[in-house]
Amino acid sequence: MYYREDTIEVNVGNLIIGGSNQVLLQSMTNTKTSDAKATIEQVGLLAAAGAALVRVAVPDSQALQALPEIVSKSTVPIVADIHFDYKLALGAIEAGVAKLRINPGNIGSQERVKQIIALAKKKGTAIRVGVNMGSIGEAENKVKYALQVLDEYISFFKENKFHALVISLKASDVTTNLELNKKYAKNYKYPLHLGVTEAGFGTDAIVRSSVGIGSLLLKGLGNTVRVSVAGNPLQELPIAKAILQSVGLLENAVEIIACPTCGRTSLDTEKVAREVKEKTKDLGRKLKIAVMGCEVNGPGEAADADYGICGSKKQGIIFAKGKIVKKVPMENVVDELLKMVNGEE
Amino acid sequence: MYYREDTIEVNVGNLIIGGSNQVLLQSMTNTKTSDAKATIEQVGLLAAAGAALVRVAVPDSQALQALPEIVSKSTVPIVADIHFDYKLALGAIEAGVAKLRINPGNIGSQERVKQIIALAKKKGTAIRVGVNMGSIGEAENKVKYALQVLDEYISFFKENKFHALVISLKASDVTTNLELNKKYAKNYKYPLHLGVTEAGFGTDAIVRSSVGIGSLLLKGLGNTVRVSVAGNPLQELPIAKAILQSVGLLENAVEIIACPTCGRTSLDTEKVAREVKEKTKDLGRKLKIAVMGCEVNGPGEAADADYGICGSKKQGIIFAKGKIVKKVPMENVVDELLKMVNGEE
Repeated sequence: MYYREDTIEVNVGNLIIGGSNQVLLQSMTNTKTSDAKATIEQVGLLAAAGAALVRVAVPDSQALQALPEIVSKSTVPIVADIHFDYKLALGAIEAGVAKLRINPGNIGSQERVKQIIALAKKKGTAIRVGVNMGSIGEAENKVKYALQVLDEYISFFKENKFHALVISLKASDVTTNLELNKKYAKNYKYPLHLGVTEAGFGTDAIVRSSVGIGSLLLKGLGNTVRVSVAGNPLQELPIAKAILQSVGLLENAVEIIACPTCGRTSLDTEKVAREVKEKTKDLGRKLKIAVMGCEVNGPGEAADADYGICGSKKQGIIFAKGKIVKKVPMENVVDELLKMVNGEE
Repeated sequence: MYYREDTIEVNVGNLIIGGSNQVLLQSMTNTKTSDAKATIEQVGLLAAAGAALVRVAVPDSQALQALPEIVSKSTVPIVADIHFDYKLALGAIEAGVAKLRINPGNIGSQERVKQIIALAKKKGTAIRVGVNMGSIGEAENKVKYALQVLDEYISFFKENKFHALVISLKASDVTTNLELNKKYAKNYKYPLHLGVTEAGFGTDAIVRSSVGIGSLLLKGLGNTVRVSVAGNPLQELPIAKAILQSVGLLENAVEIIACPTCGRTSLDTEKVAREVKEKTKDLGRKLKIAVMGCEVNGPGEAADADYGICGSKKQGIIFAKGKIVKKVPMENVVDELLKMVNGEE
């Protein structure tokens, strides 16, 4: 497993965020939270897609009213996202959420934050304190100022003997995001929630999230991850899982590598790789499978793959750890690979 | 501009790779190179999509025969990818390619590599020396061994007074890729060609390429980039451009940021962001535009955007650098934004 920087552990429902625990994926519903039925359904879909916890916005009393039912029917811990109104925060804790996400700066007063802390302590609710670059206003050195703001928040929670904190420091700009989190990690040991704000949509969103979150995970930073994509939140989980897998942090999943094809190719790597991915998706163990276009790059370049296939002018080749195991007619190459993966020969 | 580690500059046709020059994008054809017409067409498409140089495989004499025509009809420098056969390398140089990509370890003998070096020097052809983790065979410490192999290659080129070298060190595993290139950059000043081998297809390929290439670009490493995706190489350029943009290295392009939407949203950020992206794609200058779902996060969180729009319960809001500029009927919000972007008011 990739090196993780040391942090404290924070209990969130039945989960632990931080320490050497698995990096947990999360997502956020975009239903009206007041619509309990729709929200519960989306929470279920997100959990099935790989979200270990799910956040819901609680912008008003209608949303708050729906919260107890959402919490009780969810199979994963629910996080309530609260802005401005400390009564909504208190209500969400009473409703049984596992974690609150607040920005102490917009809750109104320290006295109100104290009330939230007191109730969260009593109920065992974790709190994520998030500072977003966008919301800190004007400042000469924005990174420095954001970290000052965060330090004041953290000091306040410490004074009030509250330690179940998860921290997020986000920017839409990847380089700022990296700088913020690296500087944070030099001084604090609360687990980090990683994300890139306003990542956009489509390829841009995947790329920005991957570079922003991946570069931090590679440094051993980050204990829970949320990829933000404009549109249906279900899009977020495959991206988040792929990011974890790319840095070696996803357990029990098959990784497919495939060469990009060139003038030497005699196997349609994209088509075959998609087929292999689909047919191994429920395997439930960590395995690396290579799909290569030609013999030149095939077994050799993919020597670290557990199994692989490549095309040649005459036939399909199956290899394992860089060694050719079998040559078969091209049309059988995927079936023969799957037999081997499934231990049928 | 983001900090770039110092490297020497290498001329590749009319381009310069390395130093403080722009990071150049490249791609590789997957047509049969022997089919000059199809290859020329694909080179053109890749160039139009943003490839500053294009590589073609030269696996045999038929491909070599097509090369002069491909070189003469291409608007961008052509790189020839050669394995095993030094005569193909010599022929490719004679055909006028701007750069060769070889693995000196499979060319047959030092004497043959010397002949390639002599002709490349005479013709001003650059050479990329690539070491792929997969192709270095068995070794106890593969990273150390790959760097030893590379050091021997580099020493050989130095002894033969050849300096127009570009180096690539690739692995399909992102953490190995990072380690290899970081260690390389501590000891050498030849420009780096970045890529992740066998990145696969779809979301996985985008994520692996983004994390692998992005994490190096963020360290100031990398002078030319190739994203490898199984399937049509035209897919590679939007991904490569998005990676450069995510780390602040893409000039003259509009960056769209958009929030992921939540229970507070009153604007379909995905749909609107796509529309704004499409309508600003030919603007030709660096600009950041935010598309936000609500007033809570809108102008504030996107304060670093040059322009932005967000929804509110009653109307559409247009903002610039975090300040509200105008409130307009929701249905006009994109048109009003575009007027402002285009300087029409």
